[in-house]
Amino acid sequence: MKVAVIGGTGYGGVELIRLLAHHPYAQLTSVVSHSQSGKALAEVYPHLHGIMEQTLDAFDVQQLAQDHDLVFLAAPSGVSKDILPQLVEQGVRCIDLSGDFRLKDPRLYPEWYNHDPAQETYLQEAVYGLSEIYREDIAQAKFIANPGCYPTATLLGLIPLLKEGWIDPHTLIIDAKSGVSGAGRKQSLGTHFSETNENLKVYKLGAHQHIPEIEQILSSVGQKEVKITFSTHLVPMTRGIMCTMYTQLQEAKATQDIIDLYHSFYEGHAFVRIRPEGVWPATKEVYGSNYCDIGFANDQRTGRLIIVAVIDNVVKGAAGQAIQNMNIMNAWDETAGLNVLPVYP
Amino acid sequence: MKVAVIGGTGYGGVELIRLLAHHPYAQLTSVVSHSQSGKALAEVYPHLHGIMEQTLDAFDVQQLAQDHDLVFLAAPSGVSKDILPQLVEQGVRCIDLSGDFRLKDPRLYPEWYNHDPAQETYLQEAVYGLSEIYREDIAQAKFIANPGCYPTATLLGLIPLLKEGWIDPHTLIIDAKSGVSGAGRKQSLGTHFSETNENLKVYKLGAHQHIPEIEQILSSVGQKEVKITFSTHLVPMTRGIMCTMYTQLQEAKATQDIIDLYHSFYEGHAFVRIRPEGVWPATKEVYGSNYCDIGFANDQRTGRLIIVAVIDNVVKGAAGQAIQNMNIMNAWDETAGLNVLPVYP
Amino acid sequence: MKVAVIGGTGYGGVELIRLLAHHPYAQLTSVVSHSQSGKALAEVYPHLHGIMEQTLDAFDVQQLAQDHDLVFLAAPSGVSKDILPQLVEQGVRCIDLSGDFRLKDPRLYPEWYNHDPAQETYLQEAVYGLSEIYREDIAQAKFIANPGCYPTATLLGLIPLLKEGWIDPHTLIIDAKSGVSGAGRKQSLGTHFSETNENLKVYKLGAHQHIPEIEQILSSVGQKEVKITFSTHLVPMTRGIMCTMYTQLQEAKATQDIIDLYHSFYEGHAFVRIRPEGVWPATKEVYGSNYCDIGFANDQRTGRLIIVAVIDNVVKGAAGQAIQNMNIMNAWDETAGLNVLPVYP
Amino acid sequence: MKVAVIGGTGYGGVELIRLLAHHPYAQLTSVVSHSQSGKALAEVYPHLHGIMEQTLDAFDVQQLAQDHDLVFLAAPSGVSKDILPQLVEQGVRCIDLSGDFRLKDPRLYPEWYNHDPAQETYLQEAVYGLSEIYREDIAQAKFIANPGCYPTATLLGLIPLLKEGWIDPHTLIIDAKSGVSGAGRKQSLGTHFSETNENLKVYKLGAHQHIPEIEQILSSVGQKEVKITFSTHLVPMTRGIMCTMYTQLQEAKATQDIIDLYHSFYEGHAFVRIRPEGVWPATKEVYGSNYCDIGFANDQRTGRLIIVAVIDNVVKGAAGQAIQNMNIMNAWDETAGLNVLPVYP
Repeated sequence: MKVAVIGGTGYGGVELIRLLAHHPYAQLTSVVSHSQSGKALAEVYPHLHGIMEQTLDAFDVQQLAQDHDLVFLAAPSGVSKDILPQLVEQGVRCIDLSGDFRLKDPRLYPEWYNHDPAQETYLQEAVYGLSEIYREDIAQAKFIANPGCYPTATLLGLIPLLKEGWIDPHTLIIDAKSGVSGAGRKQSLGTHFSETNENLKVYKLGAHQHIPEIEQILSSVGQKEVKITFSTHLVPMTRGIMCTMYTQLQEAKATQDIIDLYHSFYEGHAFVRIRPEGVWPATKEVYGSNYCDIGFANDQRTGRLIIVAVIDNVVKGAAGQAIQNMNIMNAWDETAGLNVLPVYP
Repeated sequence: MKVAVIGGTGYGGVELIRLLAHHPYAQLTSVVSHSQSGKALAEVYPHLHGIMEQTLDAFDVQQLAQDHDLVFLAAPSGVSKDILPQLVEQGVRCIDLSGDFRLKDPRLYPEWYNHDPAQETYLQEAVYGLSEIYREDIAQAKFIANPGCYPTATLLGLIPLLKEGWIDPHTLIIDAKSGVSGAGRKQSLGTHFSETNENLKVYKLGAHQHIPEIEQILSSVGQKEVKITFSTHLVPMTRGIMCTMYTQLQEAKATQDIIDLYHSFYEGHAFVRIRPEGVWPATKEVYGSNYCDIGFANDQRTGRLIIVAVIDNVVKGAAGQAIQNMNIMNAWDETAGLNVLPVYP
Repeated sequence: MKVAVIGGTGYGGVELIRLLAHHPYAQLTSVVSHSQSGKALAEVYPHLHGIMEQTLDAFDVQQLAQDHDLVFLAAPSGVSKDILPQLVEQGVRCIDLSGDFRLKDPRLYPEWYNHDPAQETYLQEAVYGLSEIYREDIAQAKFIANPGCYPTATLLGLIPLLKEGWIDPHTLIIDAKSGVSGAGRKQSLGTHFSETNENLKVYKLGAHQHIPEIEQILSSVGQKEVKITFSTHLVPMTRGIMCTMYTQLQEAKATQDIIDLYHSFYEGHAFVRIRPEGVWPATKEVYGSNYCDIGFANDQRTGRLIIVAVIDNVVKGAAGQAIQNMNIMNAWDETAGLNVLPVYP
Repeated sequence: MKVAVIGGTGYGGVELIRLLAHHPYAQLTSVVSHSQSGKALAEVYPHLHGIMEQTLDAFDVQQLAQDHDLVFLAAPSGVSKDILPQLVEQGVRCIDLSGDFRLKDPRLYPEWYNHDPAQETYLQEAVYGLSEIYREDIAQAKFIANPGCYPTATLLGLIPLLKEGWIDPHTLIIDAKSGVSGAGRKQSLGTHFSETNENLKVYKLGAHQHIPEIEQILSSVGQKEVKITFSTHLVPMTRGIMCTMYTQLQEAKATQDIIDLYHSFYEGHAFVRIRPEGVWPATKEVYGSNYCDIGFANDQRTGRLIIVAVIDNVVKGAAGQAIQNMNIMNAWDETAGLNVLPVYP
């Protein structure tokens, strides 16, 4: 099956290239870049020198539609909303890594994304690609709104408890931390090495655009409106997200019961790993891989439960989950092309 | 005035040496090391080559008492409790950087520190050296229990609001992050470079020994028993602590009112800096200095307030605050020897 | 084909595990650890949780010989020399990642390794596993002395020029830099995070045990005795080696001629990539992969040529090259199990 | 004495601000920024919040000349050449941190700096501010060309041997490594965190603009034309430069004799520290301080000497040496304002 990547020069795009390179069923036949079309890919990313000899293609809907069965859009937010419908109308299945199709309520876009929403029919039709939760819908989808990096870790960490009704949905506080690659390849003072190294920063406190995305899914899963407190930190490392999540248990639970709940909930899902009691995951334990690892601490002194979830933001938080969704859409083995071990150390 | 440092080969000790080197009123005349006495200090710490030519002294109470007016104890927890009383009995004022004299209730030591408590009379007599809060007591003290690194950032960030009664003391959640120097110079797998670099880890969730220290002070300030949820993270950087703190406001407040409260509370305290609305401090902004910087985010959607406090764990979280306390004890300018700017970048 | 790894808890061992996990022809059926046998592998390396469920085996020659066709030895130097002969005598092919069989002259071991040499017949029989250079010998070998990390980058960078006679073999200066994983998982002050981060160190100047290894091969290739100046630096990163090499050209050459020479020399060798003129490789461009990338700068003002070679020390400098050698020994595709792209960013 | 800093928003400028803040004799009364005049300094550099309340001034020669005795120029190369003469003509002494006045031969500017030279009379009159070597000239100077970061470490490391005639000036190879702050605050892909972290890069091989600066001084000191091979590396750390230098000894020397030579040469120079035999300096050992530390390795197998010199590029390589020069120009204690210890860890 032939696939293309639009926006191949960002970090999400280049990770798609890495993971697709040896996919058993999909073949990457075009990498599109608006800003650098015509250039050799290996000039933009020298680590591909001698491996990927192709040049970057310009964006051409007809060509893309004609030659490909599926297109990954790794373009910036605000761009996908105009491009994806053109491709879908040509009958090409799409997986969009931006936020443009994740929110059902169009009014949220001006508020949280600072741009206009996509056409409302597309917003409604979009399937949210959180693979472990929406597998059936994904299998039938024409196009996928691939989840954000923070929402992936947050939602996989909270949904089993919320669904089971063990936690109070009004007490959700998520302290999220990310490596710097989450900010992309675009340069800014905030991601300049000398300003970022040996530094820990907070940003967009209570104002991150992933908040409505998380709330939409939690409200749907919990069947009542959920509001969260969500803060984001920039950690001096390249890859990795950790969400430390705090919530009040409805009633006291043994940690092992919680662990058992998660084991049972994620049975048959190869990419979610639950840590035993007293052990918590570290971001490096999923480095370069598609795993989401989860651990728990039961703070019996306060009745609160702490849930720790980690992912590699570029893989499970972007390109890896996108490929997982492609696998599901095609009824392939969900782990095809993704069964690489974490790189350690 | 002549001072000595016991435990000069740990990171707290060597930072005392750095800051005392040019103190206008105190002269460091002995650096004591149990394990490495007789060695040249510059052999243990080559950055002192050519600057500090002295050798490390053995521990000798008589000598220390005879030659010094004040002694800093930067020995590990469990060691100070036996050493400090000997010095105090000889009439030497002491500032202890370990946790051995911070808790009033002796029963907490076996539980949280896994060792016996110090003599109870000493626990009672100890003055908790959080300089901005207990300035008057410190001025009169015979010996000081210098606060822990996490408690310093947490308490300076929470006390004004708690004292004013603006926040619900039952809703305190502290998500704390530290650079690796907080773990000291002792080697372990957890602080091995290849395991720590490009990695973000949680540890001692809900079980850190700084929890009872924070609760003791908050309960005293808030005049009711306070229990906190407290989690600790290891960030791949050497210096810096950030505490991101979540709490429910008793009633809605404008962020500016909160900022004004803090400005007024910390008036005349040179080392606490309050950020304007919409700006939050980063750890690098206090690097190498004695500042504690605080910022706020008012999450009006949930009625929660987020407080961000940062310090350099080795300075305000250890050696710097110890010197600040020495200054107060001697009625010197509180900033003497400490008015260095943060090192940036 | 069944293979085993001895010393699976070091970084070389765990990288073998990662790369073997999806090898098309070899199956890893035993991981041996002297110090931690009986423990679950995932307890020692939590990133393998849920992926590798096996426990660490004790060392048992009979068992290893009976059940395996080939054994990788990732044990420390000084241990392999006693173990490998036992296995080889049982007819098991071995690939040794330590330095114990790399040097032909037994007198060099007390001097450079500070331990006794292996049996001399084994030193003589050992095939040096620099895959690109000794492919034919490797294909016939009973056991392989897998090259050191620094020698791999140095030799691949220098051999074409030396063989061609274009450089003066008396002018070789190699300034080598390594990430910290090269020092292994054993803790020491020198690899303690707070001492290593934001720090650049030199060590073993002119005294590194890889010097005689490099000189032995260069002398053999150059057909005269070669002595090098070799210095080693510890760079605050986990993976990666860069060797910046200086040498006098015998006569002026165009850079393109040199590049052409390398292209021709390494034709058919998938893992050596030559950069075009004016472009030099960075260590991140080979991160997690088996590539050795080489670039050149022609310093016409001085008649010197600068050669820059980079590898991932854990892959091409250890586990990856070991697997490459296994592939050659079995007449499999040389890239089997190794055709992963560099992880970037 | 009143001083001003032009270009206060770059890293050289902000380090001048840090070091001048507590200088005993000089008072910083104006910080000039072309691009951000009118803004609060603390808005551009939040670590100065509450410490430096001033706003950034526009460039105004008359004002600067009227109110200040000495001006530091930390503007980019190509800007100083036009500004400095205006100030000098008004009788203001200047210390220029750019390369604009370092080279005597105007023809070198188009070639190495890619811009026109300053007026030739200014090039001739400029005093090169390598404090330890040109102390007498500096004391008399109207304006100073402050040395580059790489030249400072290189020249302090080589000059004693070259002057003494112990090394062959035709064999000088300098392998230089720098932290990323040397590239300044201007953003680029090359200093973007995700491209720089966990990466080691070479750049400008044989083409760095510091080459003619080093050669000019070495030729002058060695009294014959010296050409060097010089390569530059970008190390994933913020501060620090290490130059590893290779040279052929004219005849064999004991390492201790070399060390004695340096001790004697730098006697009375507080900021140069010579390591004992078998010990080499690391960059962190000078972090935040004005020291230049030097160590030696005598490679007797090849007759080569390896010299290792480290500095903090922002201090001794820029702002610190500029202040040292100001001290010399005013006949103050050379260490005034600079006697801070390295920050460790």
